[in-house]
Amino acid sequence: MELKLRNALKTDMHSVLELIKELAAFENEPEAVTISEKILMEDGFGENPSFKVYVAELKNEIVGMALFYNRYSTWKGKSLHLEDLIVKNNHRGKGIGSALYTKVLRYAHDNHFKRVAWEVLDWNKVAIDFYKSTGAKVFDVWRVAQMDEEGLSNYIGNKGLIIN
Amino acid sequence: MELKLRNALKTDMHSVLELIKELAAFENEPEAVTISEKILMEDGFGENPSFKVYVAELKNEIVGMALFYNRYSTWKGKSLHLEDLIVKNNHRGKGIGSALYTKVLRYAHDNHFKRVAWEVLDWNKVAIDFYKSTGAKVFDVWRVAQMDEEGLSNYIGNKGLIIN
Repeated sequence: MELKLRNALKTDMHSVLELIKELAAFENEPEAVTISEKILMEDGFGENPSFKVYVAELKNEIVGMALFYNRYSTWKGKSLHLEDLIVKNNHRGKGIGSALYTKVLRYAHDNHFKRVAWEVLDWNKVAIDFYKSTGAKVFDVWRVAQMDEEGLSNYIGNKGLIIN
Repeated sequence: MELKLRNALKTDMHSVLELIKELAAFENEPEAVTISEKILMEDGFGENPSFKVYVAELKNEIVGMALFYNRYSTWKGKSLHLEDLIVKNNHRGKGIGSALYTKVLRYAHDNHFKRVAWEVLDWNKVAIDFYKSTGAKVFDVWRVAQMDEEGLSNYIGNKGLIIN
């Protein structure tokens, strides 16, 4: 198997978006993806990119990707967040996900990040077991909270102006 | 109550660190804070700051803070992460946390972020109820995974070089 891992190019964003959609479908939220190829090209490239992507290539076909960006831990300092790690369904079980994961962790290690964080679904036992086998910790006590654009608009429109 | 919310200055990092330590103690992990005032000053200020902080001031005393930074959602686009929202123990119950929270959400709304995310401990029912009352969603199915510096060093040192 001639697996090649490399930095994504702007022209790879079409394939990257396909993978994002495949992951969202796996996570039972296919219609949650509202991002476009154009936005990914704008946000990921240029002077101040919002993320970095590694792609995995097999015979010139992009079969996986890892998308990550900087975060900050107030306990530890500069950290990295692995937002998505995706391998095409028909290419799973070949170690491609593991290779992408390792490449991101090596980037973090080589660049002296204090921590790498990511999120995993509690029913994805295969993934959780894999992460733990590499020395990662998976926490039971933290919950992810989010407010989306509509929520922001409702909250700031209705209540925000009163307080400050 | 003359509450003033403003952007933190470099010279506020001493007070900010005190608040970080107070939150870590509340979360039963006081010794987990290894960051220093100097590192906060370097990382939060200058050309490419890693985070932004709002502080809450009462009679020239900093009694709370909210620290946040950019993230990226592959489903929605540019998003914000609220890393810490802290109010000094003896100043809770006065709406200071709520005012800081709202200021961060307004920043996200005004700057067209697609989402704001944060994490909350599952036993912190007061916080969870408050977040839900503002329209935020708190997810049960996601787990936070992390690998710290030591884990990175072990994993990359032991296994990483084999794979790629």
